[in-house]
Amino acid sequence: MNFIESLNKRYASKQMSGKKVSPDKVETILEAIRLAPTSMGLQPFKVIIIEDQEIKDRIFEKSAKGQPQIPKSSHLLVFAGYKRITPELLDEYVENIKITRPTLPLAKVTAYRQMMSALTLQTEEDNFIWSSHQVYIALGFALAAAAVENVDSVPIAGFTPPALDELLGLEKRNLGSVCLMAIGVRDEATDYNATLPKVRKSKADLFEYI
Amino acid sequence: MNFIESLNKRYASKQMSGKKVSPDKVETILEAIRLAPTSMGLQPFKVIIIEDQEIKDRIFEKSAKGQPQIPKSSHLLVFAGYKRITPELLDEYVENIKITRPTLPLAKVTAYRQMMSALTLQTEEDNFIWSSHQVYIALGFALAAAAVENVDSVPIAGFTPPALDELLGLEKRNLGSVCLMAIGVRDEATDYNATLPKVRKSKADLFEYI
Repeated sequence: MNFIESLNKRYASKQMSGKKVSPDKVETILEAIRLAPTSMGLQPFKVIIIEDQEIKDRIFEKSAKGQPQIPKSSHLLVFAGYKRITPELLDEYVENIKITRPTLPLAKVTAYRQMMSALTLQTEEDNFIWSSHQVYIALGFALAAAAVENVDSVPIAGFTPPALDELLGLEKRNLGSVCLMAIGVRDEATDYNATLPKVRKSKADLFEYI
Repeated sequence: MNFIESLNKRYASKQMSGKKVSPDKVETILEAIRLAPTSMGLQPFKVIIIEDQEIKDRIFEKSAKGQPQIPKSSHLLVFAGYKRITPELLDEYVENIKITRPTLPLAKVTAYRQMMSALTLQTEEDNFIWSSHQVYIALGFALAAAAVENVDSVPIAGFTPPALDELLGLEKRNLGSVCLMAIGVRDEATDYNATLPKVRKSKADLFEYI
């Protein structure tokens, strides 16, 4: 199956069965997230991978009552963005550059660090919007990887971030939940979305050529 | 090459050569964008595909001076999100659902339309943040598709949206530019980023397991 065929086959799984996805497939999806490009390369987020049934149940009960896939997922991925881009985050990144690209002149790295520091002067609100954009690129990579691996998945924005943040203790870590992705195995009997034709805009509606 | 190998091979091409990408590869990238999932399925954006050299030059001059890839790209994709989610956008979507899923009970479609109408009550700022999130998922799909097709690409957030919006007449159409993606053929001699090792957080830094 080629990439476009995989993307055509994927859909938002609305009912999962509780069956497990194999660890190697989960790792492939995570590796796609890790490789996703981000603005300036900063990867301003964490992804929390939840297999623990009790935690999944509590997330469903406390912050995402409309999402029955969550307790029946194999793994729930919580994408949490950094609320504030701190000098420490930039320092960690610069250390990583120095190790990964040891031949790069130090003056260049310092100039790059200086350029990035503009982020630390923005408001927390603007920082978090920016972090969220990077999260969504990574979510795209994760959904595409799940499609390629033939793993059922669903992106979830319908939840209450403050409730989830409190439950996972994110706020005090300078993190805020942005979106979720449940991966699992569809419940063939009840997953009404599995067989419905995909609703998408036509090329003529979506694209313009100049 | 498998998907992860493709993602490992891709990088942000900083210098392009002006050579053209074949139309079938461009169409594959666009089809990935069209298939990208969006919140509630609404696809609240347009993608403008620019091949015209004069327009690319003007975009570079007027709104993205730091991005020399733009005039040397094969195609510049402008992702423009809807600033306001209007009842008309919902109506168009509902019409598409009715045509694509004719067996769906009308009461269900009407209830879905009602649920979505909450979007039209939000502020323009919140609408645009939401549209931008959907754009970034689609950008992820586009970047992944370019990687699979072995097409050089670069996502671009370093531009001045108001200047670009004015140049393309987006504002009066209820659209705002969110991000750009240049696709093309790298300039082997000057694209310094082509051979540098990828800088990414380790799994231990990026992921947490519960």
